Amino acid sequence: MRLTAYTNYALRTLMFCALHPGELIRIQDVAEAHGISKAHLLKAARQLGKLGYLENVRGRTGGVRLGQPPETIIVGEVVRQTEGDMEIVECFNPCSNTCPIVGVCKLSTLFRTGLRAFLAELDKVTLADLVTNGPVLLERLERHQDMQSAAC
Amino acid sequence: MRLTAYTNYALRTLMFCALHPGELIRIQDVAEAHGISKAHLLKAARQLGKLGYLENVRGRTGGVRLGQPPETIIVGEVVRQTEGDMEIVECFNPCSNTCPIVGVCKLSTLFRTGLRAFLAELDKVTLADLVTNGPVLLERLERHQDMQSAAC
Repeated sequence: MRLTAYTNYALRTLMFCALHPGELIRIQDVAEAHGISKAHLLKAARQLGKLGYLENVRGRTGGVRLGQPPETIIVGEVVRQTEGDMEIVECFNPCSNTCPIVGVCKLSTLFRTGLRAFLAELDKVTLADLVTNGPVLLERLERHQDMQSAAC
Repeated sequence: MRLTAYTNYALRTLMFCALHPGELIRIQDVAEAHGISKAHLLKAARQLGKLGYLENVRGRTGGVRLGQPPETIIVGEVVRQTEGDMEIVECFNPCSNTCPIVGVCKLSTLFRTGLRAFLAELDKVTLADLVTNGPVLLERLERHQDMQSAAC
């Protein structure tokens, strides 16, 4: 069982912005700090902008910053948006389903219950909660960013 | 977020056997009833055999049947075995992790909590619970199997 890399990148971008409140962040900096492709992050940042989680400021000195206070950004809600259909098994998607017992299968009902329990845990936590150990996270990220910059 | 097809196939095989208590089931029959490749099912059946969930009887008239009563087969335990490492995000695997904040990241802790909640729901249900509506499931599966056989 795995979340998409896209969701992972979206959450890392939000965390990076929450660690630099008010600052305009270049996606290049998130990419270097996390060692992730800039192209992948740009796609996530665009969606986060459309959803209002990020504010995108265009131009040469532009960048992104949080579009709302981190205390109001609920992790479970972000994951629902970035993961899309949350198709734990193929039968969750009626268009691609091939299973003949769809609709009468108690296993798919159980997977839905499990998924709700998973998301219920993520709904208890906000972006602000994820960065309460900000100094430790920043130290790690800045060290990695310096190494990446030096290597380029 | 998605479970592997392998887990899905393993659980469908177990359900099929639970619907035919005591009978020796040919993997070909599971494949036709569910419209799944026999090769994929054979791999899952082999692992289920090793784990004791299935008994494999070799030979021309051989097949598989449940290796233990369905009331004792807990869905969460099967999923833990068939999914392997349950790497919701890359940092769950220290060998492949590239994230610099591993070990101090509250997001990965949250994902672990969510995963535990997901599995806790699956631990409440046994294979026997999944087939309490046996006649409805059998009717659907047999109809699909007849269609598949006729097409071959």
